[in-house]
Amino acid sequence: MEEFFKGIPKIKYEGKDSKNPLAFKYYNPDEKVGNKTMKEHLRFSIAFWHTFTGTGIDPFGMATMEREWNKYSGMDLAKARIDAAFEFADKLGAEYFCFHDRDIAPEGDNLKETNKNLDVIVSYIKERMKDSNLKLLWGTANLFSNPRFVHGAATSCNAEVFAYAGAQVKKALEVTKELGGENYVFWGGREGYETLLNTNMELELDNLARLLSMAVDYAKEIGFDGQFLIEPKPKEPTKHQYDFDVATVYGFLKKYGLEKYFKCNIEANHATLAGHSFQHELYTARINDMLGSVDANQGDLFLGWDTDQFPTDIYVTTLSMYEILKNGGLHRGGLNFDSKVRRGSFEPSDLFYSHVAGMDAFARGLKVAHKLLEDKVLENVIEERYKSFNEGIGKMIVEGKVGLKELEDYALNMKPIKNVSGRQEMLESILNQYIIEA
Amino acid sequence: MEEFFKGIPKIKYEGKDSKNPLAFKYYNPDEKVGNKTMKEHLRFSIAFWHTFTGTGIDPFGMATMEREWNKYSGMDLAKARIDAAFEFADKLGAEYFCFHDRDIAPEGDNLKETNKNLDVIVSYIKERMKDSNLKLLWGTANLFSNPRFVHGAATSCNAEVFAYAGAQVKKALEVTKELGGENYVFWGGREGYETLLNTNMELELDNLARLLSMAVDYAKEIGFDGQFLIEPKPKEPTKHQYDFDVATVYGFLKKYGLEKYFKCNIEANHATLAGHSFQHELYTARINDMLGSVDANQGDLFLGWDTDQFPTDIYVTTLSMYEILKNGGLHRGGLNFDSKVRRGSFEPSDLFYSHVAGMDAFARGLKVAHKLLEDKVLENVIEERYKSFNEGIGKMIVEGKVGLKELEDYALNMKPIKNVSGRQEMLESILNQYIIEA
Amino acid sequence: MEEFFKGIPKIKYEGKDSKNPLAFKYYNPDEKVGNKTMKEHLRFSIAFWHTFTGTGIDPFGMATMEREWNKYSGMDLAKARIDAAFEFADKLGAEYFCFHDRDIAPEGDNLKETNKNLDVIVSYIKERMKDSNLKLLWGTANLFSNPRFVHGAATSCNAEVFAYAGAQVKKALEVTKELGGENYVFWGGREGYETLLNTNMELELDNLARLLSMAVDYAKEIGFDGQFLIEPKPKEPTKHQYDFDVATVYGFLKKYGLEKYFKCNIEANHATLAGHSFQHELYTARINDMLGSVDANQGDLFLGWDTDQFPTDIYVTTLSMYEILKNGGLHRGGLNFDSKVRRGSFEPSDLFYSHVAGMDAFARGLKVAHKLLEDKVLENVIEERYKSFNEGIGKMIVEGKVGLKELEDYALNMKPIKNVSGRQEMLESILNQYIIEA
Amino acid sequence: MEEFFKGIPKIKYEGKDSKNPLAFKYYNPDEKVGNKTMKEHLRFSIAFWHTFTGTGIDPFGMATMEREWNKYSGMDLAKARIDAAFEFADKLGAEYFCFHDRDIAPEGDNLKETNKNLDVIVSYIKERMKDSNLKLLWGTANLFSNPRFVHGAATSCNAEVFAYAGAQVKKALEVTKELGGENYVFWGGREGYETLLNTNMELELDNLARLLSMAVDYAKEIGFDGQFLIEPKPKEPTKHQYDFDVATVYGFLKKYGLEKYFKCNIEANHATLAGHSFQHELYTARINDMLGSVDANQGDLFLGWDTDQFPTDIYVTTLSMYEILKNGGLHRGGLNFDSKVRRGSFEPSDLFYSHVAGMDAFARGLKVAHKLLEDKVLENVIEERYKSFNEGIGKMIVEGKVGLKELEDYALNMKPIKNVSGRQEMLESILNQYIIEA
Repeated sequence: MEEFFKGIPKIKYEGKDSKNPLAFKYYNPDEKVGNKTMKEHLRFSIAFWHTFTGTGIDPFGMATMEREWNKYSGMDLAKARIDAAFEFADKLGAEYFCFHDRDIAPEGDNLKETNKNLDVIVSYIKERMKDSNLKLLWGTANLFSNPRFVHGAATSCNAEVFAYAGAQVKKALEVTKELGGENYVFWGGREGYETLLNTNMELELDNLARLLSMAVDYAKEIGFDGQFLIEPKPKEPTKHQYDFDVATVYGFLKKYGLEKYFKCNIEANHATLAGHSFQHELYTARINDMLGSVDANQGDLFLGWDTDQFPTDIYVTTLSMYEILKNGGLHRGGLNFDSKVRRGSFEPSDLFYSHVAGMDAFARGLKVAHKLLEDKVLENVIEERYKSFNEGIGKMIVEGKVGLKELEDYALNMKPIKNVSGRQEMLESILNQYIIEA
Repeated sequence: MEEFFKGIPKIKYEGKDSKNPLAFKYYNPDEKVGNKTMKEHLRFSIAFWHTFTGTGIDPFGMATMEREWNKYSGMDLAKARIDAAFEFADKLGAEYFCFHDRDIAPEGDNLKETNKNLDVIVSYIKERMKDSNLKLLWGTANLFSNPRFVHGAATSCNAEVFAYAGAQVKKALEVTKELGGENYVFWGGREGYETLLNTNMELELDNLARLLSMAVDYAKEIGFDGQFLIEPKPKEPTKHQYDFDVATVYGFLKKYGLEKYFKCNIEANHATLAGHSFQHELYTARINDMLGSVDANQGDLFLGWDTDQFPTDIYVTTLSMYEILKNGGLHRGGLNFDSKVRRGSFEPSDLFYSHVAGMDAFARGLKVAHKLLEDKVLENVIEERYKSFNEGIGKMIVEGKVGLKELEDYALNMKPIKNVSGRQEMLESILNQYIIEA
Repeated sequence: MEEFFKGIPKIKYEGKDSKNPLAFKYYNPDEKVGNKTMKEHLRFSIAFWHTFTGTGIDPFGMATMEREWNKYSGMDLAKARIDAAFEFADKLGAEYFCFHDRDIAPEGDNLKETNKNLDVIVSYIKERMKDSNLKLLWGTANLFSNPRFVHGAATSCNAEVFAYAGAQVKKALEVTKELGGENYVFWGGREGYETLLNTNMELELDNLARLLSMAVDYAKEIGFDGQFLIEPKPKEPTKHQYDFDVATVYGFLKKYGLEKYFKCNIEANHATLAGHSFQHELYTARINDMLGSVDANQGDLFLGWDTDQFPTDIYVTTLSMYEILKNGGLHRGGLNFDSKVRRGSFEPSDLFYSHVAGMDAFARGLKVAHKLLEDKVLENVIEERYKSFNEGIGKMIVEGKVGLKELEDYALNMKPIKNVSGRQEMLESILNQYIIEA
Repeated sequence: MEEFFKGIPKIKYEGKDSKNPLAFKYYNPDEKVGNKTMKEHLRFSIAFWHTFTGTGIDPFGMATMEREWNKYSGMDLAKARIDAAFEFADKLGAEYFCFHDRDIAPEGDNLKETNKNLDVIVSYIKERMKDSNLKLLWGTANLFSNPRFVHGAATSCNAEVFAYAGAQVKKALEVTKELGGENYVFWGGREGYETLLNTNMELELDNLARLLSMAVDYAKEIGFDGQFLIEPKPKEPTKHQYDFDVATVYGFLKKYGLEKYFKCNIEANHATLAGHSFQHELYTARINDMLGSVDANQGDLFLGWDTDQFPTDIYVTTLSMYEILKNGGLHRGGLNFDSKVRRGSFEPSDLFYSHVAGMDAFARGLKVAHKLLEDKVLENVIEERYKSFNEGIGKMIVEGKVGLKELEDYALNMKPIKNVSGRQEMLESILNQYIIEA
């Protein structure tokens, strides 16, 4: 097998004092954190599109990425990328990957040929999996790049496009099942609108629900028991995407009676574009039993587009791991690096530096979050803060034993209310101490 | 009765060529637009808080507003404001007003006294209503200004605060009923969080639903049949408000089985703070049977806070009236000017200039929207654009007669897909022509 | 000559009631507005890149644009695009165009060949110009698309890149002169940084000034007397662009003593990305003698990237034309449509619809602005508002005749200050009336 | 002397493992970092307005802050606040404070009385300073709270307001000198505009420069040799503030020939509201010899207003201390906590928790930044990255020895350009390691 990342060794844990940029300082895969190893907690996944098909093109410039496999083309290129992915995962020590159908195999002249191309590569992957630890975290269909999806896929104004999208989802589900994928993701690439002046939003949303229902039915039919996931994003590429954020997706699923079949795949950068912290989105999903999987990246809060940077902010990795631990882990989900190296980080080694950066940041976040929970730092504060709902009038409120009249009676006879400080600054300072010292 | 706006005449319609700033150029109350008069379409309402209690204070400066009634204090001030409101509405020709309980009457030393103060003013209003056309569009309770609500009301960590809020809602419901209010609004003033580090979001949301349920029950009990409205807002005063936007409120109501009791009171400036156009929020509400009433104002898209400016952007008034007409009107709701004169517009006459500006802008928007609908400008474009869902595979999709397998069969045999331009620029140009020429 | 826009007639003025989407409703080229014709006021220009090389590619999808000339490739394609441009300008009635060097001719294997390609096309354009009214508003060099500019051009960390950029600017200056270009533009494509962690901002800014100085010197040497323009933009493609806004560019030019050689080419969408209204940027430039030319487009204020939409907001076209009229016009500059049809507006006719939309919007804006000035609507308000600086203490302040001591003396003896309302809402309402009725 | 913070001990350094929220974990005042102590590096200052006059009022609610001194009123209150400030600074171990004239003493019925009030308090402070380490970092005049400044101060449309502002600046300069203030700050509270429709921006900016010139002259006259500082802010309270950011201020000063008299007082939250990182603003100031002092706080990047939170983000404190160390320190400037406790942190102890949080965050940032510089982590990367400007063509560019012709000659003969990765992700990971391990 051709080696694409020559000179790059297997990345090992060397600990916090290492100066080796190709070593982990915090991610020690087999180290126990609580009752699971770091590896079990974190379930890192590589995003095929950014890492093996990404070129560095942006709206103002051409490809910059130096990738050895680009000497090939067509199906040879497709296979070379698979080889690169297995080599990369092996050297990095990541156990999962994710793909869109069109990332791994090129389109043919028509859908039949396209499916054939896909079958060839799927077989190839399956073969390679036999000697590898690499597993499929999730598959999905790219329903946004081809010009046919210019007005959306399930929400296109053109019924033929809906049909095509349906066919593509069917195949992607089969392929995901074939490769043992643990989840299947719907990211509504162009499911949204550019202008309301030409849009029937009601029909489009109904149609979006129709496609999801069909997918649920077909999964049952073929016995695919992976978790379905919807990935919220508020804008880009369309001016307004329908799956704006977790709360919007939740309401949408409830409207169409689909809530028991779907959880969310929550991306940090999409959260922030929607005006929420990543923790907020995870928390909202968690308390609605919707936290399925994570697209681990980060945005630049000074920029208004999806920068998909590698996640290195330890505040964010700490507070997201905090939610994940409170969720009892990610279960079938994982931490997928839906992250791309900067256009200026175009050397092959940057793929390693960047994944190491992200994995170390999440490993550190995991340890800090675990310690916070172990010490009940925030838990105790919260328990104390809300204790009035465990007794007296608070308990009656929570148990539904009082109405407005009883509350008025109570309030008319209450002593003046005495609130207690929320202590935000003190808590932020304690968080800092944990981040540095945990 | 003391006259507070001396020298200001009754505002009349003088038509588009008038140079009189104290006349309407577009709002002609009794002019028919379709089968209703402008007045019936628009149901303008004055916001008591901005117009009669607003001072011009901002985070960096003191009161600037010159208000004749400020020579009074206590209950005399409260009554003077009521008089000012009736005079103002009469001169302006607005038929509705809205208030928070604490706008119209001052707090006493305890809840009992506070309620007594409120009763006095409510009687006073009722008396004044006998000789006036002024009606109550909606009432609400101020659950955010008093320090007791520092950590929220229904979502406070302190059960006593919840009880107090419940008592206040009870009284506000009674008062609203007493004055013939057509709606009752919940704006979640401080229902949100400042930091997740000290917050139990799950309990807080459950409690919010509990208060709403109690209000529904109590309304039934006292026979209040006005419409309940929730007013979404994403941030401010809390860092993150729970009723973020229409979609979030919809999901929340569905979760707690409350959707049939509530619609939304949608504010333009809150829409834009949440990252949506005002039209988007109205449209989302409309197709979910949630469009109840409107807080008519506008924000400054370069600023990140709720500026509550008077609505003067005719694009926005046109497209919002478009949604309202498609909704069959606002029904029991209205267009409430939740708008405040700029701090530098501190003279009493500015209250008139600004309301005239807003009323003219909405009147113009109404006429443009009506003409767009009458000429089926957008309707025809949309019908043509989505026609593929009226026949063949599209019809089968919509009718639920096909699944992924049938779609694949169809797609494998389709000719290459041919999409049609969305014509956004052309439609924007036609909209301009209507705005100028309608 | 091959006809690329078959079936599209010459666009004519048909007036405000026309329903013909391929006619002007407001732009009547030879109509006098004040002492100049509309055409002389507006100096519309077509952006070669968006209109003839734009493909509809975005970060999530492939090309969508249907362009007849795409059947050609290489130099044939380059020539076909020139033919298309001349046909398009003729049918549209636009008299100017603009280009980057790389828009009009492809790169060769090395700089020498690249320059040769450029020479061929420049000769071809020159030939075509003989029988056409089309003139070159400005030329520029594309110093951002090629991977060599990954870290910037004049601000690259690599001196060879600076040298290459210099060579390219030299050639672009020559070409611009050859074609009679009236201006030369510097848009700092990647002149900025991605992260301060690896950036020497001081050297980069010094180097940027060095390149500009060299361009000034070389222009003198070859006798190019066009106006040099810098185009501010705050972000995208780099995380932080050095030419953030007009004020930043002004300070930069002052620092390096370059202010007398450069004016600004101000783009509406760049203004809004920087947190300013377009009018603010034009105004700031005007009072600093920096208003050179305009990139006429608009952004979507809900989105955080450069959408480069066709300008259709009449508030914006009115207030920008207001500044331009106050500037005594654009002089050698023009209104260049740095605007692209939406990805979903992919048909050739959309190029016409969109330019018509933009031209009509600016024509309307021109008329409204002219009428506002003719009637001295705002001028009178402002004169009255600041009149205290024409006499007494105000005059002494303006004339520099008083210092803090004199002011204190004055203030200690002043009567209480009486301010006057700013009347913002009234002025906004008057503006609406002018927009509709002018 | 009355003790206002009963039960709060002197805050001591207890080290990183301390669980005492009223102890420093990282700030060890006399610990050497390089050749200076932490205290000398950091020069912490307390903002009188937030800490001693702040009430917790926000646009939606009343005062919440529990402050023992509020039992007093008038001049007694003013004195009590001074006593509180001295006690607080002593217990906290901060050596500087800052004030606006109106923070420390109430206005009287006219300017004369107001000045008298101020004199009384200034004498009182001077007396208290004799037995204290507390020094005045800077003074300033509040030219924005009083309604007379509704349309600005130096940029008011009313000349009498300009005169009043001048008188106030004169007195504030005298008072600052009297108390040994090391700097004098101009924050342009309402120097900006609400709408361009009624604004003469050119005159307003000229007038702003006039006031600054007068201040410079008067400082010379009275022998005040403190540093003048301008504090940039982009928006709020006015829609658009003239001192938008450091680059804008720089250009403004250059235009009026004032650049040698002023440096900047840079606030973190103002930087982010302007679309820049705090580091960017510090860096821009540093390379233009404009870095004078710092308002140490942080904003919430999800919110669009000035939240003035206590600075706890260690990334930000590290990178800002990095710039400050590169600047050779803050010289006469300091780190002024222009930060207010959250409205929900209303207990007196929160003032200590929050200052401790901020001081520890900056102390940690100082150590990390110092170590980064000591190890030349970024310095070496940058030196290597730009080395091509130390030799050959790069050296000639920097030395001004080549023009476009020479660059073209060079470029025509160059080998294909080979760029090197910018390594952003690797650098971010190294930064993390330093933040945790330094």
